[in-house]
Amino acid sequence: MHRAILDKNDRLAERNRGFFRARGLLVLNFLSSPGSGKTTFIREAVRALQPKLKAGVIVGDLATDNDARRLRESGAPVVQITTGTVCHLEAEMVGRAVKQIDLNGLNLLIIENVGNLVCPASYDLGEDLRIVLLSVTEGEDKPLKYPPMFQSADAVIISKIDLAQACGYDREAALANIRRVAPKAQVFETSAKTGQGMDAWCQFVAQQHQARSERDPLSL
Amino acid sequence: MHRAILDKNDRLAERNRGFFRARGLLVLNFLSSPGSGKTTFIREAVRALQPKLKAGVIVGDLATDNDARRLRESGAPVVQITTGTVCHLEAEMVGRAVKQIDLNGLNLLIIENVGNLVCPASYDLGEDLRIVLLSVTEGEDKPLKYPPMFQSADAVIISKIDLAQACGYDREAALANIRRVAPKAQVFETSAKTGQGMDAWCQFVAQQHQARSERDPLSL
Repeated sequence: MHRAILDKNDRLAERNRGFFRARGLLVLNFLSSPGSGKTTFIREAVRALQPKLKAGVIVGDLATDNDARRLRESGAPVVQITTGTVCHLEAEMVGRAVKQIDLNGLNLLIIENVGNLVCPASYDLGEDLRIVLLSVTEGEDKPLKYPPMFQSADAVIISKIDLAQACGYDREAALANIRRVAPKAQVFETSAKTGQGMDAWCQFVAQQHQARSERDPLSL
Repeated sequence: MHRAILDKNDRLAERNRGFFRARGLLVLNFLSSPGSGKTTFIREAVRALQPKLKAGVIVGDLATDNDARRLRESGAPVVQITTGTVCHLEAEMVGRAVKQIDLNGLNLLIIENVGNLVCPASYDLGEDLRIVLLSVTEGEDKPLKYPPMFQSADAVIISKIDLAQACGYDREAALANIRRVAPKAQVFETSAKTGQGMDAWCQFVAQQHQARSERDPLSL
């Protein structure tokens, strides 16, 4: 049963991917625990990218439109998916949500998944890149304890770096654990509050967008 | 299918509950996001309760025995359940794990669930009380955004209160949001690091144990 749901999801995800590529969109799927700072990070990144890349945002939550309202402060169009009791986004939900966004003039689609470090890892949404956030407050061992999520990451954003000292954050241990589980993921150390690391992140996104616009959109 | 799994789980959970009551155990199911401080809190609480109540601990993780090792520092017997890719504990796993603990002389069984603020809410393990942790670093809106978990809580532990100032924690908002979703839950503001609030917590656990030992163990 679970297998069949995933098969259907994988097909719809590829459909999404083809659609997104035809529209020239770079699509990022943001994943993390609840409270690691996805919404604030995305809001600040969308603002910083604005001169170069125009973004639309899809945000999934069990309940409330708190995050959608916060994301709208960035000026980007935002569509909320309310999942009820469902612990992850699925390709079909994203396919429905994207129809509510005017994609003309957009270069970037950011999907903020449900806060959950386990289940969303199994669901391809048709994204180009998976971005996993890990806040310094969560503990350095999380990559080892939640390997499926971190193994699937194309980039890992260490967030709330401004709180590093207050939490006794062990930078070397965190980086070593990320590298062990996700050796190819690019790592960004950031604070959406102070702005630290946001330039490097924006540069990465712009490069990824550029690289994709030069590639065959229908290749696997 | 999901329904059928839950029905079976509910029956096994009641079986566990009857077994635990016959052994005079108070059983606590600890739930939260990854990184909210469950393991440290439980380790310190087990130590502080030791003179009055002897605890055994069952801990669930997708991978690694990091938490089991940290919990053993409390002196309590600890059994690890490695779930692989499963995002929650089930009654059957707990039933198997409890057979590996010598229950003679124990008054308390603490179950540390997989770090996940969504899925474990649906799975009764046979516990007496559900304890949901919320760290001050996660944001005050989490009870509203993850209502099934907080609605099921008998007690809410606000953890890492020592970081409140560094995170700009809004105490009134957090308490108001908890009360809105879980009006009957007792709330404890704690820091396992500084010891703040740990006495009140231990007193609560001792009272709960006492109250249950005076009640018909087979009543619903």
